Amino acid sequence: MPTVKLVDENTTDPKVRAIFADIKATRKIERIPNIWRALAANPEHLELCWNQVKAIMRPGKLDLMTKEIIAAAVSITNGCDYCINSHLAAAQRLGLDAEGMGEVLAVVGLYNQFNKLVFGLQIDPDVLPKVEA
Amino acid sequence: MPTVKLVDENTTDPKVRAIFADIKATRKIERIPNIWRALAANPEHLELCWNQVKAIMRPGKLDLMTKEIIAAAVSITNGCDYCINSHLAAAQRLGLDAEGMGEVLAVVGLYNQFNKLVFGLQIDPDVLPKVEA
Amino acid sequence: MPTVKLVDENTTDPKVRAIFADIKATRKIERIPNIWRALAANPEHLELCWNQVKAIMRPGKLDLMTKEIIAAAVSITNGCDYCINSHLAAAQRLGLDAEGMGEVLAVVGLYNQFNKLVFGLQIDPDVLPKVEA
Amino acid sequence: MPTVKLVDENTTDPKVRAIFADIKATRKIERIPNIWRALAANPEHLELCWNQVKAIMRPGKLDLMTKEIIAAAVSITNGCDYCINSHLAAAQRLGLDAEGMGEVLAVVGLYNQFNKLVFGLQIDPDVLPKVEA
Amino acid sequence: MPTVKLVDENTTDPKVRAIFADIKATRKIERIPNIWRALAANPEHLELCWNQVKAIMRPGKLDLMTKEIIAAAVSITNGCDYCINSHLAAAQRLGLDAEGMGEVLAVVGLYNQFNKLVFGLQIDPDVLPKVEA
Amino acid sequence: MPTVKLVDENTTDPKVRAIFADIKATRKIERIPNIWRALAANPEHLELCWNQVKAIMRPGKLDLMTKEIIAAAVSITNGCDYCINSHLAAAQRLGLDAEGMGEVLAVVGLYNQFNKLVFGLQIDPDVLPKVEA
Repeated sequence: MPTVKLVDENTTDPKVRAIFADIKATRKIERIPNIWRALAANPEHLELCWNQVKAIMRPGKLDLMTKEIIAAAVSITNGCDYCINSHLAAAQRLGLDAEGMGEVLAVVGLYNQFNKLVFGLQIDPDVLPKVEA
Repeated sequence: MPTVKLVDENTTDPKVRAIFADIKATRKIERIPNIWRALAANPEHLELCWNQVKAIMRPGKLDLMTKEIIAAAVSITNGCDYCINSHLAAAQRLGLDAEGMGEVLAVVGLYNQFNKLVFGLQIDPDVLPKVEA
Repeated sequence: MPTVKLVDENTTDPKVRAIFADIKATRKIERIPNIWRALAANPEHLELCWNQVKAIMRPGKLDLMTKEIIAAAVSITNGCDYCINSHLAAAQRLGLDAEGMGEVLAVVGLYNQFNKLVFGLQIDPDVLPKVEA
Repeated sequence: MPTVKLVDENTTDPKVRAIFADIKATRKIERIPNIWRALAANPEHLELCWNQVKAIMRPGKLDLMTKEIIAAAVSITNGCDYCINSHLAAAQRLGLDAEGMGEVLAVVGLYNQFNKLVFGLQIDPDVLPKVEA
Repeated sequence: MPTVKLVDENTTDPKVRAIFADIKATRKIERIPNIWRALAANPEHLELCWNQVKAIMRPGKLDLMTKEIIAAAVSITNGCDYCINSHLAAAQRLGLDAEGMGEVLAVVGLYNQFNKLVFGLQIDPDVLPKVEA
Repeated sequence: MPTVKLVDENTTDPKVRAIFADIKATRKIERIPNIWRALAANPEHLELCWNQVKAIMRPGKLDLMTKEIIAAAVSITNGCDYCINSHLAAAQRLGLDAEGMGEVLAVVGLYNQFNKLVFGLQIDPDVLPKVEA
């Protein structure tokens, strides 16, 4: 059960109403996902969060599917069920098929393993060949 | 300081020697990274780990750069310094420029934030439109 | 489903009985929360845990609400649903209103983001002005 | 070693220059901390991050010291060394003394323990008395 | 709800069929646990994962119960409900009684606490007496 | 650099002095590890922590080496460098050889991987055969 009261999609609060409309238009969706209805309990924070998502989750050097895959990899590593479902579904809508999803999962699993092997081995940094950043 | 003795690159152990040669050939590198020299303290485990990396970290539905970006996203979320440096450097060698790297970081930061907002809000799953898996 | 059998509130075990009574008296509650009934499966461990909570969760330099807020921040970061609900409810009983709770959440989300940005950027320590500890 | 080139404090980039000036003025500091110089490698992201910090890290229902304590609790739970040092130092500058800092640490340690005990015990939610949110 | 379609125990896919038979024979179980039916959505990855589990989860210097206890300790620290139930049940089948399980939990809780105390205190390494590795 | 001032081994504070003596006697060591010198900045908390360690880290249903292995597994999963070194060294002093240590690491790595695969697959609990707890 949510720790805040979800704001109704048809709220009369003008700030929230405008953001909900922008979410629907930007995402081309009919229903406001629960995360935004919950954040709307604090309209200032909702605005901050939505502006941040809009600024970051648009095609740039990385396309949108790569960004959703990163979001899924982070969410799987953190064990956030709601987020895992949401970002894997978004990546699928953008064209990730079952085989691609299997690869995402295999890489995420592999490096969660290697991160911990590295912790256990306490290895020093490699002297890597320089790359221009 | 490592918790195991790193195996010398020129070890005479035939199993380790063969794997080290395969790592150099597959990765087109001159020096064996410390992670493999440390894992070589247990040759069976080295073999298992290297075979797994070889099977997973090759182009498939996802290209290699996307896979290195996923590895970097996982490593940043887990805070593994050695791994962060290693995978960001690999992604750069595959062509990720500074702007792309900034986008990786922005997405990773954003969803580490959202994962925790979702935990705090304890929101129920959305009823998402079905997608064929 | 719990991995241990929850001990009944009216158990006849004298050690557990005394601790349950102390929990009710100290916390001014009528029912023993499930965490204590589960820990009671091992009475020695129950005693150790309850004594530790009693010693730490009392007003000191920090008041009790600040301590419950810290507990909530930790629990949200770790994604422990039971604990999130329990500590946010405790903070509310101590007077945290919806706006305050929104601020807790915003700060927790913000720094989970920044922690990971810092990991990704691998930045060196600042030379901070000294403060007498 | 940072994964990006830190931007010089006296950069001629106008957007970054303005933000650096705002950071110094808002925080009443003489030097730009490394986190902001690193984020400045991507000026858009720097702006987004700084605006978010400014909006959230100001006195509201919670005072600034409580917010820095929450930031420290999150950073300790995530093991981010740079962030731990930065937020504990900030809390000290705002008046947290050694005894208060000991209490922060004790609560953070205690609930990292309890979060994991709860995971291990797999306990069901309590039926908590309702609180008006 | 799983993010992939679980493969039927009686699948006609020959690779998956052979692995399922091996899982039943090795583990002496009648039913394929859901984790393997889900991994079977990608037969190559299933094979890789099962071979790794078979190679690692057999008696060696450590007996099988110690290995299941380690698996439980990792799973509790990561908060993976499915895994916690699975590994604690496996350890019980191998002979871990309620008192032993209480000890596992107490140690896991204790060091999750100490890990975070150490982060908060930012202590330098001890100069430990050398041990031959 | 520690966030608190480490207490000198030869402190004149009677409570701390008694605990330091008990640590040396119980652990059969000549020097107080830094963790205890740091916790001694708050003598009440030092006492609470040391009593807890003494009560939990003694042979019971599990022997001491198994308990140190659990502590190492937790510390590796959390990425606590100081703790990893400390508990692996302790396990080695109790007789864990290089091969055994390789097995600990392999199991820890394996289940950090599986925990995240399970998160990504979002699998439902198995119907496990009942075990008497």
